[in-house]
Amino acid sequence: MFMTGKTAKNTVEFSEFEKYENEIVTIKGTIHNIRMMSDFAFIILRTARETVQCVYAESFSDYRLAEDVKEECAAKITGKVVAGETRDGSKRYELQIHNIELLSHPAEIPPVVITKKQVNCDLSTKLDYRPVTLRNPKERAIFKLQEGIQRGFREFLSKEGFTEIHSPKINFAGAEGGTNVFKLDYFGKQVYLAQSPQLYKQAMVAVYERVFEIAPVFRAEHHDTSRHLNEYISMDLEMGFIESFEDIMEMETGLLKYIMQLLKTEYKNEVELLHVDIPEITEIPVLKFMEAKEILMKKFKYQPTDMKDFDPAEEEMLGKYAKKQFNSDFIFITHYPSKKRPFYTMDDPEDPEYTLSFDLLFRGLEITSGGQRVHDYNAQVAKMEKLGMNPEEFATYLMLHKYGAPPHGGLGLGLERLTMHLLGAKNVREATMFPRDINRVSP
Amino acid sequence: MFMTGKTAKNTVEFSEFEKYENEIVTIKGTIHNIRMMSDFAFIILRTARETVQCVYAESFSDYRLAEDVKEECAAKITGKVVAGETRDGSKRYELQIHNIELLSHPAEIPPVVITKKQVNCDLSTKLDYRPVTLRNPKERAIFKLQEGIQRGFREFLSKEGFTEIHSPKINFAGAEGGTNVFKLDYFGKQVYLAQSPQLYKQAMVAVYERVFEIAPVFRAEHHDTSRHLNEYISMDLEMGFIESFEDIMEMETGLLKYIMQLLKTEYKNEVELLHVDIPEITEIPVLKFMEAKEILMKKFKYQPTDMKDFDPAEEEMLGKYAKKQFNSDFIFITHYPSKKRPFYTMDDPEDPEYTLSFDLLFRGLEITSGGQRVHDYNAQVAKMEKLGMNPEEFATYLMLHKYGAPPHGGLGLGLERLTMHLLGAKNVREATMFPRDINRVSP
Repeated sequence: MFMTGKTAKNTVEFSEFEKYENEIVTIKGTIHNIRMMSDFAFIILRTARETVQCVYAESFSDYRLAEDVKEECAAKITGKVVAGETRDGSKRYELQIHNIELLSHPAEIPPVVITKKQVNCDLSTKLDYRPVTLRNPKERAIFKLQEGIQRGFREFLSKEGFTEIHSPKINFAGAEGGTNVFKLDYFGKQVYLAQSPQLYKQAMVAVYERVFEIAPVFRAEHHDTSRHLNEYISMDLEMGFIESFEDIMEMETGLLKYIMQLLKTEYKNEVELLHVDIPEITEIPVLKFMEAKEILMKKFKYQPTDMKDFDPAEEEMLGKYAKKQFNSDFIFITHYPSKKRPFYTMDDPEDPEYTLSFDLLFRGLEITSGGQRVHDYNAQVAKMEKLGMNPEEFATYLMLHKYGAPPHGGLGLGLERLTMHLLGAKNVREATMFPRDINRVSP
Repeated sequence: MFMTGKTAKNTVEFSEFEKYENEIVTIKGTIHNIRMMSDFAFIILRTARETVQCVYAESFSDYRLAEDVKEECAAKITGKVVAGETRDGSKRYELQIHNIELLSHPAEIPPVVITKKQVNCDLSTKLDYRPVTLRNPKERAIFKLQEGIQRGFREFLSKEGFTEIHSPKINFAGAEGGTNVFKLDYFGKQVYLAQSPQLYKQAMVAVYERVFEIAPVFRAEHHDTSRHLNEYISMDLEMGFIESFEDIMEMETGLLKYIMQLLKTEYKNEVELLHVDIPEITEIPVLKFMEAKEILMKKFKYQPTDMKDFDPAEEEMLGKYAKKQFNSDFIFITHYPSKKRPFYTMDDPEDPEYTLSFDLLFRGLEITSGGQRVHDYNAQVAKMEKLGMNPEEFATYLMLHKYGAPPHGGLGLGLERLTMHLLGAKNVREATMFPRDINRVSP
């Protein structure tokens, strides 16, 4: 027997190369690319977040490049750290190879070329071979950046006193009604996959005041578009003791500022590699739904066909308006018509045809829906009855209201969609690690 | 229209009371408990993580305690901060009430008493009324502590260079075979809910070297015991470029140290309220499976009935042994028999009847399974064939191996089970916010 509790490290990271200039070090990684030249070779080593240029030449070492040194071998490379220059004149360290120790061998070469700047096959092939195509530095950078977005969401809210919760994904009834849910046999009972953590996050507001969750949600929508997924990661927050639904928009403004700042600092490599245009946020303009409709009609000479919602063209115009008028990549639209928002949305007491709700548009695309919720039991029951719903079917949900809930509200933010918009990608699948859509459940 | 980007705060937190001694402040929260005395009243205000003692007496103020001031009203209380003494002589701030502004009103009083030190009803009733019973300070402290465990997991691994991933929960085939999976109709295809992120976390090791995921997993097990759940939160990690499977145990040792330290500092209130005995960790003893069996036979005079695995009584004895011999609450058992471990486990090259795998026991209960994985394509295919599996059915999984994978391994840790053991609870449902078991899918 022995005891754990020791730490040993005998390799260095690329980020430490500066400390080791002209010294012999060992670095580990995967051999990403081998480029044979006339009398030397470039061996690009892929580490967790970088690629390291290693150079092989017989002049450096008596080591002979073995025939089994191939792309996608895991390896330890020992050599001398030398400083070179990049094209733009900045310092760039590389390794003069003295020896390569192979740690594993692929059985076959990848079916798709992953060594170029980007993976150039069609989207469907790219997704079919995700375990391979994600090895491409640009592809994997997308999901590292995505990690940064959800990390920013979590860090900011934790600092603001929110508690992270995990609500169940197998439910007896859908929180938002019976349509578009995946049904499941659960030991003889019919149950549903969670469409949203709505019921649970509201319930927990009466427990922790402020809560958030980052978790998968499931929507059995038959859409086959570039923006729909049937499973995605929803970032949800719910906050109690609000004075007004504007508190939620203020929280989101702070949240987005924090996320963008985090991406610029901690995810700089990825931002640069992907040429991401990180939005600058100081404040976000807020327009009422009807004000927005007027602007569309007056400034854009657009005749809306639907006075209860926006179509994608309208959202795009509002995005342009926000940029031109306020130099903002974001714009909040508030007071959506009551008919278009869920039953738990609080109506505006000044005009109950409209609600204390909002959407956030980012560069002309909707990324958030949120608003204040009904917290009073009698008001919620009355609203349900008005909508033809049976409150008895929602007894579990209404436990919150019946036994007392603070004034509260919240929002949901789709992680993949936000990533997509940030990248300027055309298809949400580009920003989804392993997409699930109407045609795809693998890999 | 207006602009967001402002922050306003007109209430104080209980933690700031020291700054405001003898001053008038306003604090918000839920009226948790009202205790009427002869000529005064205690009003306990429940805030996000504390309870604050407020005292009402006509001598303090001309405000009259309104009749609608009831338990579970959300409220703002204005009053003077005064320093009192607790029974043990330490300073404890309270508020002399000048005014109460009610923000919401419950329609009914809670069906279960939540104002005592603990909720005293039976477990089933407690779970039926979770949205209410979780408001009890001890109940909610359990899940605040649980937040701390997963926060520690995430923070430690992020510092160690791990990337957080989100793998899909709807899968075409179960990673660990076809038993005990929930089946689902997905637009006419039969699909499964993920039992584990095994396939995906291994695939991502070839992308980011080190990854982790904290997410729900689903097991259609028919067990109806105090330790089984059909949906739970699995904390998984997978790390590449290991020198040996001991690297994974070293990582877990560091991880547990970090988590326990975090609980002691950032979750001190909850640890005290729940009387949690946080284990001290410096190093963790490691025993081979067969060594452990020998100790059971020699030191405990126990005759094992199964030489391929441990029964709960054996685990308990090994826990006692670890405590007595090494003063450790934890013990790793390694080299489990090959027959009892999954197909992806690497056999010990020195004795292929056993594997490079481990379990971690905490106070005599298993909390982790982990080990080194087969990374070589031909070795994995050969192992599958030996086990009577058809490698063609695992083509997606084997993409990792075929196109090259570093030596790697990992582990899984059940969040609710670890919470349960830490609390010394007898039933995992006590440590599950909204449990899903063979009989329960609500609330």
